[in-house]
Amino acid sequence: MEPAEIALTPTDPALSYEELELAFRNRGMPLEAMRYDITPTGMHYLLIHWDIPDLDLSAWRLSVGGAVDRPIELTLDDLRRRPAVTMPVTMECAGNGRARFSPRPEGQPWLHEAIGTAEWTGTPLRHVLEEAGLAEDVVDVVFTGADIGIQGDVRQEYQRSLALEDATREEVLLAYEMNGRPLEPQHGAPLRLLVPGWYGMTSVKWLTRIEALTRPFDGFQQQAAYRMQQGDELGAYVTRMAARALMIPPGITDYPFRRRYLAPGPVSVRGRAWSGYGPIVRVEVGVDGAWSDAKLDEAVGRYAWRGWTFDWDATDGSHELSCRATDEAGNSQPLDQEWNAQGLGNNLVQRVVVHVQR
Amino acid sequence: MEPAEIALTPTDPALSYEELELAFRNRGMPLEAMRYDITPTGMHYLLIHWDIPDLDLSAWRLSVGGAVDRPIELTLDDLRRRPAVTMPVTMECAGNGRARFSPRPEGQPWLHEAIGTAEWTGTPLRHVLEEAGLAEDVVDVVFTGADIGIQGDVRQEYQRSLALEDATREEVLLAYEMNGRPLEPQHGAPLRLLVPGWYGMTSVKWLTRIEALTRPFDGFQQQAAYRMQQGDELGAYVTRMAARALMIPPGITDYPFRRRYLAPGPVSVRGRAWSGYGPIVRVEVGVDGAWSDAKLDEAVGRYAWRGWTFDWDATDGSHELSCRATDEAGNSQPLDQEWNAQGLGNNLVQRVVVHVQR
Repeated sequence: MEPAEIALTPTDPALSYEELELAFRNRGMPLEAMRYDITPTGMHYLLIHWDIPDLDLSAWRLSVGGAVDRPIELTLDDLRRRPAVTMPVTMECAGNGRARFSPRPEGQPWLHEAIGTAEWTGTPLRHVLEEAGLAEDVVDVVFTGADIGIQGDVRQEYQRSLALEDATREEVLLAYEMNGRPLEPQHGAPLRLLVPGWYGMTSVKWLTRIEALTRPFDGFQQQAAYRMQQGDELGAYVTRMAARALMIPPGITDYPFRRRYLAPGPVSVRGRAWSGYGPIVRVEVGVDGAWSDAKLDEAVGRYAWRGWTFDWDATDGSHELSCRATDEAGNSQPLDQEWNAQGLGNNLVQRVVVHVQR
Repeated sequence: MEPAEIALTPTDPALSYEELELAFRNRGMPLEAMRYDITPTGMHYLLIHWDIPDLDLSAWRLSVGGAVDRPIELTLDDLRRRPAVTMPVTMECAGNGRARFSPRPEGQPWLHEAIGTAEWTGTPLRHVLEEAGLAEDVVDVVFTGADIGIQGDVRQEYQRSLALEDATREEVLLAYEMNGRPLEPQHGAPLRLLVPGWYGMTSVKWLTRIEALTRPFDGFQQQAAYRMQQGDELGAYVTRMAARALMIPPGITDYPFRRRYLAPGPVSVRGRAWSGYGPIVRVEVGVDGAWSDAKLDEAVGRYAWRGWTFDWDATDGSHELSCRATDEAGNSQPLDQEWNAQGLGNNLVQRVVVHVQR
């Protein structure tokens, strides 16, 4: 079924062994897992900057301090006794698509697969902040994880902040369960922040400290990393997930080329779409560049992806399928993506070549 | 803390985008997960040749036929009503270490991380075979998964066989639970074969058919793939896991280089070791090429890895740590590994460079 001579397409610049090590540690979701509303825990994407920390869960506490009236310290049981919320949330890495930029920025070399949708259970952050009593002049709330490493010449704990108005949104959780079970270590056990609608770097894992600041937070991961950098210009901050649709590549595949083959005739092309800026209102599917609307399912949740289906009558020959989402705010996806130095926010339209043959 | 100019090490030949897609789908276990006796489900390695099949679990049946007296068909409930065995099993991909060969054979580009140890629950295969009544002249038993794809120009179901004497060993299970829960789709739901001590390709996922043959099985995955190939010479069959020790790289790391830094003084270097040919009896740790014995823990199980610890007094400067295992049968690990075309069975000694500084 295959042409005799096929070449694999070399990465440009050549992927390094170090980046390959990152790729194996930091797992993608196989795209066919979009057939499940909720991603099985072992298929959800992972991005861990350094190592998974070796936490003593019996000694673990969450401290809430800084510019507050009443600093508090909470055990996991304290958190579990608070009001619990369970909700499906789609999460995506800000670097998803990094290796599809040209030239390829160095670092975790995601193609398309840094996504997942889990049912997260936790307690709303804002009630905990209210209990601690934020000072009137608080501007940022800083979240510190137990993971330690070096990045950009800086030895650091992993830290990200949210502006006060984002930190106190009702959907922001302190999450201790994923898909009905305690968090596995790689997902931040025993507790992580969960910020629905935002790229994953915001949802700090292995959370140990929350501190209220009366000045803007100036940490590395907030000010140097996660910026739409061009040369020396750090550029805009990366925050919410850009609108995106992805399809499950139809047909069957070959190893190791991952080409797609299917028989001519009716085929139901399926996928998911999401945006951090509002509900998805439209998904279009392109067949060799001609676009048509896909049929939309109900969204899995307010902050979770929406399924879509496109009925295609596949004809003999090779075809390029593509898909793009539009959200309620009118955001859609580019056919050509502007490059940035950190390889962030790439929501370039996905293209899948399929070979239709009897 | 970092030298000003550091270059990442390019893959040779350059890794392809297709292989990178494989790397994200086929997940490695972060080596620090060796701190857990049992690998959390979401960190166990995965190797899926093509796509995860879309099975209708309500319609799923296991058929047992071929050269048997009484062909049978079993539901999952039928299998769950049979005697159950739970045991920890260490599993490794036969291609683990493929990208460490030079030149790098094409395909799933594992470095070290294609391992994991889970608690598997299932029912012994041999009782099911006895119930079906194997003909006297059976030589091979063939296991077929529901995954379909193309490899080596052959469109195929995934199929592997075991010789009669291997198929009827008491430790071979039809497994329906992993770590106390039903299999997740990517691990073969609803049922997989589990062959302790063998490389993972033998433990067929999404199992649908078992057939007894009175002639040797000649399927692609049995006769063409998984051979220690040199040029046109297909070479020996790959079967049981070679002896191997791996260490958790000590200290902290930097992104994206994955270099290791630690402070001078006592450090406990830890890891795991296993072999498909018998219990591990010795682990040695090399410090700049000088080898000493590590202390061995009890094995996690008859077919599961054994922990080890080496107390090292780290001194200023850069050092190369390494480790190697020896099993009861006298098998150990090479310092130089002979190349083979499919990139299989590479149990080359792991080397980890650490930078010791205040």
